[in-house]
Amino acid sequence: MTTLTDVTDGATAKGEQTRELILSTALRLFREQGYGKTTMRAIAAEAGVSVGNAYYYYGSKDHLMQAYYDLLQDQHRAAVEELLAAEKAFVPRMTGVLRTWLEVAAPYHEFAGTFFKTAADPKSPLSPFSEESRPARDAAVDIFRQVVEGSDLKVPADLRAELPELLWLLQMGVVLFWVHDSSDDVRRTRALIDRAVPLVDRLLRLTRIPGVRGVVTDLLGLIHSIKP
Amino acid sequence: MTTLTDVTDGATAKGEQTRELILSTALRLFREQGYGKTTMRAIAAEAGVSVGNAYYYYGSKDHLMQAYYDLLQDQHRAAVEELLAAEKAFVPRMTGVLRTWLEVAAPYHEFAGTFFKTAADPKSPLSPFSEESRPARDAAVDIFRQVVEGSDLKVPADLRAELPELLWLLQMGVVLFWVHDSSDDVRRTRALIDRAVPLVDRLLRLTRIPGVRGVVTDLLGLIHSIKP
Repeated sequence: MTTLTDVTDGATAKGEQTRELILSTALRLFREQGYGKTTMRAIAAEAGVSVGNAYYYYGSKDHLMQAYYDLLQDQHRAAVEELLAAEKAFVPRMTGVLRTWLEVAAPYHEFAGTFFKTAADPKSPLSPFSEESRPARDAAVDIFRQVVEGSDLKVPADLRAELPELLWLLQMGVVLFWVHDSSDDVRRTRALIDRAVPLVDRLLRLTRIPGVRGVVTDLLGLIHSIKP
Repeated sequence: MTTLTDVTDGATAKGEQTRELILSTALRLFREQGYGKTTMRAIAAEAGVSVGNAYYYYGSKDHLMQAYYDLLQDQHRAAVEELLAAEKAFVPRMTGVLRTWLEVAAPYHEFAGTFFKTAADPKSPLSPFSEESRPARDAAVDIFRQVVEGSDLKVPADLRAELPELLWLLQMGVVLFWVHDSSDDVRRTRALIDRAVPLVDRLLRLTRIPGVRGVVTDLLGLIHSIKP
């Protein structure tokens, strides 16, 4: 017997399939043709759905990119789960999280180069700093919160509270470097991560020196004051 | 009697006038219509010169922007000369240089917002980090070299050598903030400068602590390794 629930679930499942089909088609076209040149019309045609149907699921190309940010985020979280459960030392936790992101994002490396101009504009909804990107950003910061909280790191409380966001900013710096890294298998970005993380660890340990601590507190205050 | 030299000088002077006219016209049109929408054809028409003549002086719109960078640079240097000759303390030297830049660039604040997307792309010749921007960048770094060398600042030799470029990077951060600052008379950017420079001064003084010094040396090594 087919119940109302079954019908609804069936419709929902089909809806999810269509949604995923539109997103994967869009990402393929973005990669092949670039973000700017790909239209919603072309995405719908390539996915075999009506333009109206495509717009029903995604209000604009920007919404498709936000969906991609969320997808990347989910994949990253799943990929680091085991590491974060097993490892306690800060350096391998942080290094692992950054290196895993490179692996998850690897299929989109070339596309990221063409897309960079759009995301680099702080006024764009697709900037990692925008209000629209908040869900993906919060999810990303939360991974760095896990990196800190599950680790053996010892830093003053005010710095500890800010650290997840600061580590996410460091990741944005790594992503910026990665976008423009044309070395084989992004070797230079890997080297940067391997060298930068132990240095961050040492910088964080310096905050135990009283004279350093005061300056760090004021630096955190300044960072707070310039945040939008 | 008109000599050959007079004739040549006259022609050169006229050429300089035409060059300046094309540049000032271009900057006005960039401000009024945006960089992307302004064509070399429109610039030539507005300046009352032939398109061929405009291209004779500036190979492209990019060349016009580079000329603007150079102009801004010259104006900045002239405007800080007196301060750098008179003041010895690091904080007022650095604060003055950054604040003066805001004054010199003020007429282009709105335009900078529309132009940001182009300059933010590291692959663009108009990026402050590009090979094409090197003359303007070197001239800017040189102002920060003066800031350091003429000051009472005491830092380890390796850091001192890198400092002009690092201070220029700090200025790029301030410029990034300024581009997106919509507060009255860019009050927020002024506040940022007034707060950040004394903090930089304190951070620099920390490098006298031996434990800090080693980390700073390694940090400078890392910065070196990631430079293109």
